[in-house]
Amino acid sequence: MNLQAIQSSGYEVVFGDASELLIDFLQKRNYSKIFFLVDTNTSEHCYPGIALNIAGDIPHDIIEIDNGEENKNIDICIGIWKMLLDFGADRKSLVINLGGGVVTDMGSFAAATYKRGIDFLQIPTTLLSQVDASVGGKTGIDVDAVKNMVGTFTNPQTVIIDPSFLLTLPKREIISGFAEIIKHGLIVDKEYFNAIKFIIFDDIDPLIIHRSVAIKNEVVTADPHEKNIRKKLNYGHTIGHAIESYSLQHDKNPLLHGEAIAIGMIAESYLSHKFADLQQEELNEICDFILSVYPSYKVDENSFDDLLAFMKNDKKNEDDKINFTLLNSIGTSTINYYCSEEEILESIKFYNNLIK
Amino acid sequence: MNLQAIQSSGYEVVFGDASELLIDFLQKRNYSKIFFLVDTNTSEHCYPGIALNIAGDIPHDIIEIDNGEENKNIDICIGIWKMLLDFGADRKSLVINLGGGVVTDMGSFAAATYKRGIDFLQIPTTLLSQVDASVGGKTGIDVDAVKNMVGTFTNPQTVIIDPSFLLTLPKREIISGFAEIIKHGLIVDKEYFNAIKFIIFDDIDPLIIHRSVAIKNEVVTADPHEKNIRKKLNYGHTIGHAIESYSLQHDKNPLLHGEAIAIGMIAESYLSHKFADLQQEELNEICDFILSVYPSYKVDENSFDDLLAFMKNDKKNEDDKINFTLLNSIGTSTINYYCSEEEILESIKFYNNLIK
Ligand SMILES: NC(=O)c1ccc[n+]([C@@H]2O[C@H](COP(=O)([O-])OP(=O)(O)OC[C@H]3O[C@@H](n4cnc5c(N)ncnc54)[C@H](O)[C@@H]3O)[C@@H](O)[C@H]2O)c1
Ligand SMILES: NC(=O)c1ccc[n+]([C@@H]2O[C@H](COP(=O)([O-])OP(=O)(O)OC[C@H]3O[C@@H](n4cnc5c(N)ncnc54)[C@H](O)[C@@H]3O)[C@@H](O)[C@H]2O)c1
Ligand SMILES: [Zn+2]
Ligand SMILES: [Zn+2]
Repeated sequence: MNLQAIQSSGYEVVFGDASELLIDFLQKRNYSKIFFLVDTNTSEHCYPGIALNIAGDIPHDIIEIDNGEENKNIDICIGIWKMLLDFGADRKSLVINLGGGVVTDMGSFAAATYKRGIDFLQIPTTLLSQVDASVGGKTGIDVDAVKNMVGTFTNPQTVIIDPSFLLTLPKREIISGFAEIIKHGLIVDKEYFNAIKFIIFDDIDPLIIHRSVAIKNEVVTADPHEKNIRKKLNYGHTIGHAIESYSLQHDKNPLLHGEAIAIGMIAESYLSHKFADLQQEELNEICDFILSVYPSYKVDENSFDDLLAFMKNDKKNEDDKINFTLLNSIGTSTINYYCSEEEILESIKFYNNLIK
Repeated sequence: MNLQAIQSSGYEVVFGDASELLIDFLQKRNYSKIFFLVDTNTSEHCYPGIALNIAGDIPHDIIEIDNGEENKNIDICIGIWKMLLDFGADRKSLVINLGGGVVTDMGSFAAATYKRGIDFLQIPTTLLSQVDASVGGKTGIDVDAVKNMVGTFTNPQTVIIDPSFLLTLPKREIISGFAEIIKHGLIVDKEYFNAIKFIIFDDIDPLIIHRSVAIKNEVVTADPHEKNIRKKLNYGHTIGHAIESYSLQHDKNPLLHGEAIAIGMIAESYLSHKFADLQQEELNEICDFILSVYPSYKVDENSFDDLLAFMKNDKKNEDDKINFTLLNSIGTSTINYYCSEEEILESIKFYNNLIK
């Protein structure tokens, strides 16, 4: 099946075999040097296939980092800058980021700032990075464990999405990434929300990924710098992100991003029913579907103060108010609701009661 | 005297009293928080006057760094990011960079990357930063003493140029900054080159600064990302920059940037005479004027290998060729000349012979 390229602001997202698409791209350009950024896992699972296909034809160097969010930081980024310098990267060099969101976020930041900006390609290899990190131009690293404290808005030359990379991705990571797909359906496309209920996690239909990228792309191209409409993508993330951070600090086996966002989407659906126009039946439909996919996680009532403090500090909020995107129905949403602390805690208790 | 604002790409360079212009600017905006970045010297000489005028009316925080190029590095930059975070800077905050090129380069990089970019103002307080660093959108920091290894092209909201700041600037710094003014005359404006011969260093005519900014602005707006015509600004810098770096590493009292560029301009005028159309009389005129302003500095013949190695590594050069901008006459120039190693050394010997 041939999936159409998606036009973003000044670049394309293309779908298919990564090696073929990469060779196509490189034939049209003339780079002085080419660098792959990979992590421990994509070095093992994703790079070898590409290496085999481009062997000999396309000289390149490899920069490998350890996997995991804790490595998406300024120290590792300095290491990448220095490697680029040592390997002789100049302004006509290209960086190819082959990995999940950690590699694509940090590699794109390193490239966007090395010698005031060199070209880079994104080849996302996780479901999350394919449907979410792939478009929108956000680059970033963490400083002092503050997520994405530093970054830029810089577009890649191209994004290559090859769904076959997902075959080696652990199931738990797949399901985590699926939360963003659910979100895309909920905020703008009811038909899509109904369709994704039939997803097969072991063999994801590339059409699902394609539609998710298209939805995110429509939203971000309408509002590249997150002034208004792009905030729709925060749905589930105000509460979800707080729970994710708390879990990261307190749980031995912390929630993955999407697992926390799933909880956030249930809580924020409750708020949508209470304050926006979401009807009881649709609220039930959302909760039933999410609970059928995600494991139960009891949100500790002792965490409530920390959760609220986190939400107030989160960068999405200005003037100390806690900002929400809420649903009016499955497939329609509105930005810039403000809810009180009690209401927020009530919504988390609503989730806790569902999983009892 | 009222100097007209200069229009750059999406922002203005305005001339006059810094406090008045700052208040004007802030009245039209609505920032959540305001930060001044200063260094040891501008904290003492430039900030107090502004503080007096905006006192009470404009709440702000101050971030102070140690002065000097050795502080334009990633560690200090991380410190600035963290201070912004600790002081609660959000996406609607403003950073005002009040200082020389070190403060304006690093402060603009920190702002351009903090939370993916917040607004910043430039208030350059040295002659060099007023006539050179003020327009063109280059931000940057050094990593491992590699100059401007990391940076972005990001435009400020506005540049405020207040020539009265120069009254406290050491004479040596003034004369160093003047080299860029000479360069602007040489590369594009003969009439201006003749006019600046009458400069009074203790009381610089603001018109001279204004014209220099206008020249640089014309060049950089025609070529924002330094693909072609902007390379004209490298005149004197291929050789000058190498001498500057060598002096920095070897001399007890190293050359300032402009002092090295002055030597570079003489050497590159010699090359212009030999390879481009610069006539003997104009070559003499350039040398006489530069030597009348700058102290003699014998370039050590033992440094020649290092100088050539440096030029080859300099980011301006691709494919190991050493790239020059040369003059065809005073006021006209052409980019992308390549000279051999012997020719380059000959030009430095030419300078050495002049000062004997
Ligand atoms: N730029 C954006 O718009 C955007 C959007 C969403 C998330 N993000 C960022 O993305 C990051 C999370 O992305 P992620 O979930 O992809 O995390 P990740 O990059 O850490 O990948 C998750 C794990 O999967 C491994 N992996 C990657 N591809 C694999 C493959 N094909 N086979 C086997 N293992 C593989 C990785 O090594 C890692 O251990 C966060 O830092 C987040 O801030 C950015
Ligand atoms: N962005 C650009 O386009 C661009 C262009 C040229 C140079 N630069 C950068 O600018 C830097 C050099 O700039 P610079 O020469 O202004 O150096 P600088 O900022 O170090 O200033 C020189 C000295 O003067 C002091 N000073 C500044 N203003 C003063 C005042 N009004 N009174 C008294 N003392 C004062 C400073 O504290 C410092 O000690 C370099 O890092 C260079 O890379 C950038
Ligand atoms: Zn998310
Ligand atoms: Zn210079």
